[in-house]
Amino acid sequence: MERGPGLANQRAVRRHNLGVVLRHVSEHGPRSRATIALETGLNKTTVSSLVTELIGLDLLVERGLEQRGTVGRPGQVVELSGSGVVALGLEINVDYLAVRALDLTGAERHRSLDVRDNRRVQVRTVLDRLGALATTALEEIQIEGLRPVGATVALPGLVDAAGGALLVAPNLGWNEVAVVEELLARIPSPPNPAFPLAADNEANLAALAELWEGTARGLSDVLYLSGEIGVGAGIIVGGELFRGSQGFGGEFGHMTVDPSGPPCACGSRGCLETLAGLEPLLEAAGLDPASAATTTGSGEPVSELAGRARMGDQQALDALRDAGRWLGIGIASAANLLNFQAVVLGGFFAQLATWLAAPIAHELERHVLASEWGVPRLLPSTLGPEAAVRGAAAQSLRRVLTDPASAEAA
Amino acid sequence: MERGPGLANQRAVRRHNLGVVLRHVSEHGPRSRATIALETGLNKTTVSSLVTELIGLDLLVERGLEQRGTVGRPGQVVELSGSGVVALGLEINVDYLAVRALDLTGAERHRSLDVRDNRRVQVRTVLDRLGALATTALEEIQIEGLRPVGATVALPGLVDAAGGALLVAPNLGWNEVAVVEELLARIPSPPNPAFPLAADNEANLAALAELWEGTARGLSDVLYLSGEIGVGAGIIVGGELFRGSQGFGGEFGHMTVDPSGPPCACGSRGCLETLAGLEPLLEAAGLDPASAATTTGSGEPVSELAGRARMGDQQALDALRDAGRWLGIGIASAANLLNFQAVVLGGFFAQLATWLAAPIAHELERHVLASEWGVPRLLPSTLGPEAAVRGAAAQSLRRVLTDPASAEAA
Repeated sequence: MERGPGLANQRAVRRHNLGVVLRHVSEHGPRSRATIALETGLNKTTVSSLVTELIGLDLLVERGLEQRGTVGRPGQVVELSGSGVVALGLEINVDYLAVRALDLTGAERHRSLDVRDNRRVQVRTVLDRLGALATTALEEIQIEGLRPVGATVALPGLVDAAGGALLVAPNLGWNEVAVVEELLARIPSPPNPAFPLAADNEANLAALAELWEGTARGLSDVLYLSGEIGVGAGIIVGGELFRGSQGFGGEFGHMTVDPSGPPCACGSRGCLETLAGLEPLLEAAGLDPASAATTTGSGEPVSELAGRARMGDQQALDALRDAGRWLGIGIASAANLLNFQAVVLGGFFAQLATWLAAPIAHELERHVLASEWGVPRLLPSTLGPEAAVRGAAAQSLRRVLTDPASAEAA
Repeated sequence: MERGPGLANQRAVRRHNLGVVLRHVSEHGPRSRATIALETGLNKTTVSSLVTELIGLDLLVERGLEQRGTVGRPGQVVELSGSGVVALGLEINVDYLAVRALDLTGAERHRSLDVRDNRRVQVRTVLDRLGALATTALEEIQIEGLRPVGATVALPGLVDAAGGALLVAPNLGWNEVAVVEELLARIPSPPNPAFPLAADNEANLAALAELWEGTARGLSDVLYLSGEIGVGAGIIVGGELFRGSQGFGGEFGHMTVDPSGPPCACGSRGCLETLAGLEPLLEAAGLDPASAATTTGSGEPVSELAGRARMGDQQALDALRDAGRWLGIGIASAANLLNFQAVVLGGFFAQLATWLAAPIAHELERHVLASEWGVPRLLPSTLGPEAAVRGAAAQSLRRVLTDPASAEAA
């Protein structure tokens, strides 16, 4: 009776320690087995055997000798392997579909982008297209000899992450779409029978990407703002994604900032995104709001707006100042509640940060009660429009970092 | 070399297990040693010895035999002792000072209340008065043979909990007051040289009280609203108090709900508390807002307002509906960000919940993006104005539940 649990426990400990070693190399960079042993507190023989197993799983790879041997003679340095596993990031947004494949080193192994206004297309047509893009990506990856370990879909609305469903995306006009189930049905040859496909809110995934590899690295309490056709947020608390009791947290764009303001696609009125979203901003600047979602994507009208602002066009500057003010008021209210260290301006907010930063900062000084002890820093996103789809792929790779043995089945 | 750490470790384990047993009885009620052993997984001999030590510390006490013996013959039941330790809750608010002493069973062993407008009194006079109330409380407690184990001061503003200082309380007009240091200097005979005195935001402490013994028992994600002269919040996330990166979270009253609204004591404009705080509510209802903070306290004007509403006074009903609307807009914005399960209406909001609930619920339906999947429940506080000061005392008692050996020194 004692023996079974003992052995099971030993295996669980080993499985756990595989993750400890892999994450250690992932977080701290290439190093020798001896250094890993010293830094993790695991014994050298154990680390050697774990590293051998991780090399066998194509998760670690050897590369030359350690330069400055910290323990005894210089040892073979191991680093994350780029030739083993990859994960897919998929994204459905209002004006584009995107696919990225990232390997364990974070390098991009495949990308595709399909820019068009998805509001004018039937739900199943959009799913067909994304399914086709994902299928192509998986085929290419497998031809390269890489093992796909999973995929995550970034969605612009309320997501039931456990059920893999999009509940509502006001700007897309989608309601209750079983995205994961529908996509799985459209991937004719999944790499394995139980290919793990997850779904999450796009701002959540972008926030994680900025935390893991972007401008928010090293911070623990962050509000990430995603400026797209809609305005969303991902909230990082204590270094972890904050989701709320049902997973519906972070709906920053639907904070009411002007109760008598314009009607919103969600059915309410005066939501922040009706005043600082891309379409009202373009309209106020004298540009065609419909250009926010054309076959050329939102990049062009945003560049056009930035160009006008740079030339001193007063209407463009006024529109940016007003949008910045509303954003600042919303951020200040969120900061009064959440007291975060920094705000990451993502999506088009990053491209327009030059003009948005000053009015935002002004409102933070005015409205944040604790402003005397510091207002949140403003950080333009460094990943830009890549944030959500990279975060989606990284989210699936994290599972391998947590439990490397799970990559064996892939 | 091995022995020292081994012994130290053994002592640490025993100290830890004292807390396991004491908290188990605190959370699950009176039970026998055998039941405790069964439920905690500790062995019977260890539990017996731990219980003996806890009885010796006057933290547990024996009371008769177990009715339904779950293990072997009926055993002596132990329960929390009301005759050992007590903690003080102290509160400085805009219109009153309060002191409560609670024993480990949660029973009140002392209370005092000094109602007056503290905005019209010098800071040191307020501290003198609270120091005198605390001194009297400590003297009485010790005469009764009880051991004071600590005190927590509830403060209506931004608190530097680590430094024991109030940073700013806009409604009191206080800035940078070293409350803990000042109070310690005013307690001439502290029960022991290192009497642990802490400070925290009043809404935070009230939120904890509602979670531990009030209307939010059993919930994990809650927004507690404190309606006083100012409006504050305590945010519970995953069963724990959420504080934010610097401890300044929960400033619900300073969310901007109407950017062109009235000026606020904090220097901003359109803060929620300028539209749903007690003074603007009384004024809108045709009552004297100055009556919110007189020597009779806010209870009287709130009762007067409730009385008028009950009689169908249209001005009172309109004022309550408007305040409820603004509250609803603020709660909806917070819910879009935080996705909590329930809102506790505390302070005067509880007394007026009959009239506030409908307009709040209406705005939640309108403004919460996820309203289709449930809006937060509205729960009137069950502890009422006692919440903050009881939470303050309970917070200090928690230290004993976590580390019962700390009560030995007291």
